[in-house]
Amino acid sequence: MGKNNPIVGVQLDRSSGIPLYSQLYQSLKKMIQNQELPPGQKLPPIRKIAGDLKINNSTVVQALEVLGREGLVYKHVGRGTFVSTALESFNEESSGAEIYDFSSLSPSPQLFPVREFKAALNHVLDYYGGEALSYQSHKGYQPLRTKMASFLHQEGIDVSPDFIQVISGGQQGIDIAAKVLLAQGETIFLEEPTYPGSLLTFQSRGARIIHIPINRSGLDFVELEKRLLDFRPRLIYVMTKLQNPTGYSYTREQKERLLQLAYKYNFYILEDDYLSLLDYRTYNQREPSLKALDRWDRVILLKSFSKVLMPGLRLGFAVLPEELQEKFLEGKYATDISSSGLLQMALYFYLKDDSWEKHLDAIREEFQARYKLVKKFLEKLKPLLYYHDPRGGLFFWVRVNRGGSSENLGRISRKKGTPIAPGSSFFAGMQNSPWFRLSFATGDKENLEKGLLVLEETLREFQYGENLNIEEEKGPIL
Amino acid sequence: MGKNNPIVGVQLDRSSGIPLYSQLYQSLKKMIQNQELPPGQKLPPIRKIAGDLKINNSTVVQALEVLGREGLVYKHVGRGTFVSTALESFNEESSGAEIYDFSSLSPSPQLFPVREFKAALNHVLDYYGGEALSYQSHKGYQPLRTKMASFLHQEGIDVSPDFIQVISGGQQGIDIAAKVLLAQGETIFLEEPTYPGSLLTFQSRGARIIHIPINRSGLDFVELEKRLLDFRPRLIYVMTKLQNPTGYSYTREQKERLLQLAYKYNFYILEDDYLSLLDYRTYNQREPSLKALDRWDRVILLKSFSKVLMPGLRLGFAVLPEELQEKFLEGKYATDISSSGLLQMALYFYLKDDSWEKHLDAIREEFQARYKLVKKFLEKLKPLLYYHDPRGGLFFWVRVNRGGSSENLGRISRKKGTPIAPGSSFFAGMQNSPWFRLSFATGDKENLEKGLLVLEETLREFQYGENLNIEEEKGPIL
Repeated sequence: MGKNNPIVGVQLDRSSGIPLYSQLYQSLKKMIQNQELPPGQKLPPIRKIAGDLKINNSTVVQALEVLGREGLVYKHVGRGTFVSTALESFNEESSGAEIYDFSSLSPSPQLFPVREFKAALNHVLDYYGGEALSYQSHKGYQPLRTKMASFLHQEGIDVSPDFIQVISGGQQGIDIAAKVLLAQGETIFLEEPTYPGSLLTFQSRGARIIHIPINRSGLDFVELEKRLLDFRPRLIYVMTKLQNPTGYSYTREQKERLLQLAYKYNFYILEDDYLSLLDYRTYNQREPSLKALDRWDRVILLKSFSKVLMPGLRLGFAVLPEELQEKFLEGKYATDISSSGLLQMALYFYLKDDSWEKHLDAIREEFQARYKLVKKFLEKLKPLLYYHDPRGGLFFWVRVNRGGSSENLGRISRKKGTPIAPGSSFFAGMQNSPWFRLSFATGDKENLEKGLLVLEETLREFQYGENLNIEEEKGPIL
Repeated sequence: MGKNNPIVGVQLDRSSGIPLYSQLYQSLKKMIQNQELPPGQKLPPIRKIAGDLKINNSTVVQALEVLGREGLVYKHVGRGTFVSTALESFNEESSGAEIYDFSSLSPSPQLFPVREFKAALNHVLDYYGGEALSYQSHKGYQPLRTKMASFLHQEGIDVSPDFIQVISGGQQGIDIAAKVLLAQGETIFLEEPTYPGSLLTFQSRGARIIHIPINRSGLDFVELEKRLLDFRPRLIYVMTKLQNPTGYSYTREQKERLLQLAYKYNFYILEDDYLSLLDYRTYNQREPSLKALDRWDRVILLKSFSKVLMPGLRLGFAVLPEELQEKFLEGKYATDISSSGLLQMALYFYLKDDSWEKHLDAIREEFQARYKLVKKFLEKLKPLLYYHDPRGGLFFWVRVNRGGSSENLGRISRKKGTPIAPGSSFFAGMQNSPWFRLSFATGDKENLEKGLLVLEETLREFQYGENLNIEEEKGPIL
């Protein structure tokens, strides 16, 4: 890095009260993100940076350490520090949002019951010692599966713990179901738009993917039944509650209809209840899941603790039809042998405790408050945009009116520190969409409000004509 | 359960000093394992069992609780207690060995550094709080990958942490490699015999599997080169150090030859270093791995902490060729998004500490002592059997002489509380083999010695003719 070393241009304000290392970290981070410091670039030696900016070596070391922890730079033993080469561009959970991250569904870490879970972990290690760190049963820690069976019982699902399989998070449930049910070239039906992680998995099985649109009234059953005449899917993947990204929830009638079709055309349904117990819908009664209505044993239900408790647990459950249980267990073994016994046991002891119920109430309350805040914001901004009211959940599905492209909106928002999730990521093969997903899961209420202010400004400036750039508008209007 | 209720026949010895609940637990467990209490059987109510055996209700409750924890029975809310229906019959890591489990490679939990790891976990939660329980980067916690890079550097492998991917254990590495490289019908070459978990995974991808035998001199390179003329594999899966189950380690020459073939025929090599740093080979210099010699960037190296540290961590690493790194990352995301951030961070802090090196020394010493014990035993029993000396590792590959079948030996051994791993599980499609794998990983030295005494008795009784039952003897003589 010779004359074009951008680091010499870093401005540090010694009177601002913000630690110098933190200012340097912020500046370097910006340069990495906008590629002024491109991937793979070797940084100048610490002494040089310190000399150029007239700061201590240790200040530079501290800044680099934070950048290193975030994966933005890495130290190559004996050779120096480099800007990381592989930035995870398809990462939905983006990091580095300066004001508020509207694109991510990662719940805010401030909401995690760290103290209580830490107590559960310690209890397990004290009581069980090495056994807790040995291989756990492939199906999963029995008491935990029994506990899940009692949660399911409260939802109207009566199933033996033998048909409950512990998995390493909801995504793994999708992966194993694909492995078990879809050989090369077999057909799967997906909602459109849908959760992108599922597309990745089904594509990697070489499955033929048929998309069934979701419109204002929900899944397009006319289209579904039409497609069923031509294609015989082995599996249909749906999110019946607070669908990602539309926020749509199936009616009782729609669930019954889907089950009848599964029976008539002999396919399985993978029901992804990714929000699980976080459902706090404000107006509707909580509707029974597909699995609760499933009298023909066609539904594989996925439950996850990632959104309602903590993503870092990497724990979820698959509730299986009797005839799939053994094959799914075999698929689990072939995937990663078993999920972490320590975390399963800690989760069990945590769930036994009162604090779990209190946690549920607290996060439902928190997200309901945020939901109301964002809804008010969206109401205020009509007719700039149209939105679907999910009446619960962690996000809204919003449409920019007047032909705007959410890809463009996304670029602008990201620059202003308020990234959104442009709709095109949720449709296979789409380049532009007027829709985007606006999440309120991350950060805290204060930053959410700040972010909404900035976003409002952005939306008001986002005029017709300036940003008209739609090559393709796919899917029906929601 | 009417007149044929076997539980009424349970004998309890009130003077033995063994708690009554424990005696009851043992008796019920035996009955479940030999199916006197068959899968799905509803147990009598607690009060009835207590009344029949003239013990307290609470004694029965305790016994059932232990059985429940082991997954042998389950309590169905509102309906009673049942014997579990799905016993994990393909489980290599068997539970319930009464004297010593020679079949399992699960290292003994007594060897786990529980106290030190607990301290690392607590440090992470105290210092990072909720961040430690949030989603971790898909590639894996950066400082941990950097630490792995420095371990690899000590092994002569110089690679950027960017090409190191954290995975949820070694099995997942096999699964993702298969996902990334093998579409339906593509060819993979495997050693024969091989690790059964890999067979499961490759079969589930619909891959064409070609087996290359291992004989007394190691991998049959003549056969390999012959097969390469007819089939073009995308991938070859090998264990170059202490191969499972033969214990064979590739020579330097063989590694070079394999690499040259990979370059000539354009395939990748999945090198599964499943024992990782546990290698304490007594006579040889530690040989460099394939990856260390890999000048054409063809090798995907898998490293695991399951055997050398603790299986319950469910953490391993894939060290990738540059051109596969992005695809592998995508495959990781599609599989389970990311491995547990909490466990990755705790592992990192544990590894930074001195105690890690001490742990390594302690377990190498422990297993070397067991290795010598078992080798002495095998020497004593010639000519009843022949064995391959792995000069390290966690097991011996042993052959019953005079035409015996290790399946039969396995049945007898299991009944006597000393299960072994019959060779047929390591060959695709084989019913009988004179070979078996004798592990010394589990339990403690005392039980190992007891187990060897029983096994010696069994082997001496295992006569020619009585047990001759070989339908097929596949594979060359090792």
